[in-house]
Amino acid sequence: MAADRYRRLAGTAPGRFLTRRLGLPQPEELVRWTPEQPLLDGKLLVLSAGGARRTSALCALLARTGMDVVRSEARDPAVVVLDAFGVATVEDLATVHAALHPVVGSVRASGRVVVIGATPSDGDPEQAAVQVALEGFVRSLAKELGRGRTAQLVRLAAGGPGAGGPAGDPAVAAAESTLRFLISPKSAYVNGQVVQLSPVEGGVAVDDWERPLAGRTALVTGAARGIGAAVATALARDGAQVVCVDVPQAAEELERTAVRVGGTALALDVTTPEAADRMAEAGPLDVLVHHAGLTRNRRLADMSETAWSAVLDVNLGAVVRTTRALVKSGTLGAGSRIIATSAVAGLAGSAGQTNYATGKAGVAGLVRALAPGLGSYGITVNAIAPGSITTRTTTASPRLVREAGRRMNSLAQSGCPEDVAETAAWLAHPASAAVNGQVVRVCGQSMPGA
Amino acid sequence: MAADRYRRLAGTAPGRFLTRRLGLPQPEELVRWTPEQPLLDGKLLVLSAGGARRTSALCALLARTGMDVVRSEARDPAVVVLDAFGVATVEDLATVHAALHPVVGSVRASGRVVVIGATPSDGDPEQAAVQVALEGFVRSLAKELGRGRTAQLVRLAAGGPGAGGPAGDPAVAAAESTLRFLISPKSAYVNGQVVQLSPVEGGVAVDDWERPLAGRTALVTGAARGIGAAVATALARDGAQVVCVDVPQAAEELERTAVRVGGTALALDVTTPEAADRMAEAGPLDVLVHHAGLTRNRRLADMSETAWSAVLDVNLGAVVRTTRALVKSGTLGAGSRIIATSAVAGLAGSAGQTNYATGKAGVAGLVRALAPGLGSYGITVNAIAPGSITTRTTTASPRLVREAGRRMNSLAQSGCPEDVAETAAWLAHPASAAVNGQVVRVCGQSMPGA
Repeated sequence: MAADRYRRLAGTAPGRFLTRRLGLPQPEELVRWTPEQPLLDGKLLVLSAGGARRTSALCALLARTGMDVVRSEARDPAVVVLDAFGVATVEDLATVHAALHPVVGSVRASGRVVVIGATPSDGDPEQAAVQVALEGFVRSLAKELGRGRTAQLVRLAAGGPGAGGPAGDPAVAAAESTLRFLISPKSAYVNGQVVQLSPVEGGVAVDDWERPLAGRTALVTGAARGIGAAVATALARDGAQVVCVDVPQAAEELERTAVRVGGTALALDVTTPEAADRMAEAGPLDVLVHHAGLTRNRRLADMSETAWSAVLDVNLGAVVRTTRALVKSGTLGAGSRIIATSAVAGLAGSAGQTNYATGKAGVAGLVRALAPGLGSYGITVNAIAPGSITTRTTTASPRLVREAGRRMNSLAQSGCPEDVAETAAWLAHPASAAVNGQVVRVCGQSMPGA
Repeated sequence: MAADRYRRLAGTAPGRFLTRRLGLPQPEELVRWTPEQPLLDGKLLVLSAGGARRTSALCALLARTGMDVVRSEARDPAVVVLDAFGVATVEDLATVHAALHPVVGSVRASGRVVVIGATPSDGDPEQAAVQVALEGFVRSLAKELGRGRTAQLVRLAAGGPGAGGPAGDPAVAAAESTLRFLISPKSAYVNGQVVQLSPVEGGVAVDDWERPLAGRTALVTGAARGIGAAVATALARDGAQVVCVDVPQAAEELERTAVRVGGTALALDVTTPEAADRMAEAGPLDVLVHHAGLTRNRRLADMSETAWSAVLDVNLGAVVRTTRALVKSGTLGAGSRIIATSAVAGLAGSAGQTNYATGKAGVAGLVRALAPGLGSYGITVNAIAPGSITTRTTTASPRLVREAGRRMNSLAQSGCPEDVAETAAWLAHPASAAVNGQVVRVCGQSMPGA
């Protein structure tokens, strides 16, 4: 993991003095996934609000993760899952307060609060309002938890029975890969996010939660180094044969990454006309991760046409073209997973980055636009929007205050490439069919937004 | 207008030193609306990208505002309107750069850039992607313009002809009240916003753009002081008969506000069971502004059930109940306008405000859920999400750095109640039928979001 300079600085005596004085955050060392410790250490407490509509199905599912699931008040749980599916009125919201108020203070450091919501209804404005209200709740809770603890909202798909065993509750069953990710150390840097699940036809039987991508092929662009290389590594760990793509200039480093992950290297500029054909030669793909990206920062008044077009072509144009071609040719078929890379800077806007933010906002628009159509073929398409991620390629040491500003997020630190990679692995999972058209920020709940 | 302490502090010699040293913003005094200067001073430059699909209709409309509309490069324009309706491919985006790159640097202080986009298409993922890409563009531009200059994106409704005079272009005609607002000093503190317009049946003939609410009745809750009083004032200026509502404890101040705006006072707690009936007695309403609100800040672990429920009941419960009852009874009929109050803290989340943010996020969910149904009756329902607004009731002087943090927005200052009031007046406008289900932030493009 890359060193986190701010966290180290803030840990020194003068750093502590300065950060306290300026009201800057005191970061916590996050618990991250290791083969030796794949789960958070502590109990998983399941609570209910608004009528416990999905609670028993959730308990059955969560018990399969290997965590110790309890229903009554545990002392310092590692994870709290709140079934708020049935919350449908403003008065019902009081049951959310009643359930969480007594326990949130005791959740362990690096622990999780996951609220299970329902899809806002078309026909019931009050239910829709209060289910959206839970976004404001979770985002506020995520900001006040501290100590590396996070909060998320997962909205189950509309439809399905109100209660019953997991076999009889497809909406809960479809959430399994998502819940396993969010309650695990793999989601350490995901915070304050809302995931809307879609209805899925049939279920996906997962034989092996350890190597869910065994027998599958993944292609990752921008894989030579940094986040792209971390994504290749995570997908290989999960069993995938990985085709690592990067520009010819990075061929040596690309080769080393490919060897390291037991995959193959494909030196290729994704903006060239033959890019899609070259990618298709890698054979049928189960997973495509668009991570190749470029920045050329300038204020618009000073930005050349070249800087504009180069960034847009890599970050958006190539994604549009290669996705279209690979779906059309059948290289990406039923059950495949497309993951594109947006950015917090694209969603929130960023001074001096009109080209970059235009492309990254476009990626968010693209996955939302493609999702319904591709979903009907069993293909999912989602985007990851990284916030401040420290990579080996991060250069120059900015001044303390500026550094603090860049890392202005609820976890008070930058993330590492593995945080993005684990998120990609979740989206690439065969059991993640219900996750489609989502833009998931991996940013520690960084402040910028719109 | 309330004094802006940070702007004054930052204007002093030590303030300038400190703000520069810390990389904090240098605020500009914004040009705001006065009867004497209703328009920005300078030319209005209309540019085109992606094929100039709506440009001639836009020019005809904008010429009616009284501004000097020019089509070729003006030196230091006050307003730039870019027709980007036809931008449908990643390559088309280069025409956005080409059009704005030469002129953005010369836009006058407190000037405007308004980009006209199209509704993202269901059937054309690339068009959808690039139209969403314009969000990232506008939000970035809004962050880098500086000097009180703002940028917004207005998406015309889908459908309608591709070109033609304003009579033949209903989608452009339906944007008139929105464009008049955004290019005027009335929108001084609105920045980085995206407004999606809906198709409307028929047009609205506006006889008098000076007093568009003449002969209409508006009811404003929370009207005794602060933002609510400013809303009442702006609606009265626009010709409305205003019913000012506030709690009985504020009766004296309420009475003074009512007298000042030439309206009537109704002392009423909006959470009481009889609230909707009492409001209905004020007669048919053309405009309803829900501004009554409450905060009871505590971390969730320390928050009492009372603090939770009191805030939720005023900020969301009463809005749901009274809106439902007044629509059902016909007090709000065809052509009426409902405006509710959300908050940036609700959309982004806020530590120590789970109750407040839950309610304010719920308001955003409510207007989106109600809009399609009410729209079919000719009623619009929108929300305003204020950021940092300085009112007379703002207390205590926080330390400089904390103050700067709170005012962390692209305009580097707090707004004033009039900024929210002018936004309400735009949404209340009879010609704003195409604005429905929108949540408009009045925040100077404050950084927090999600």
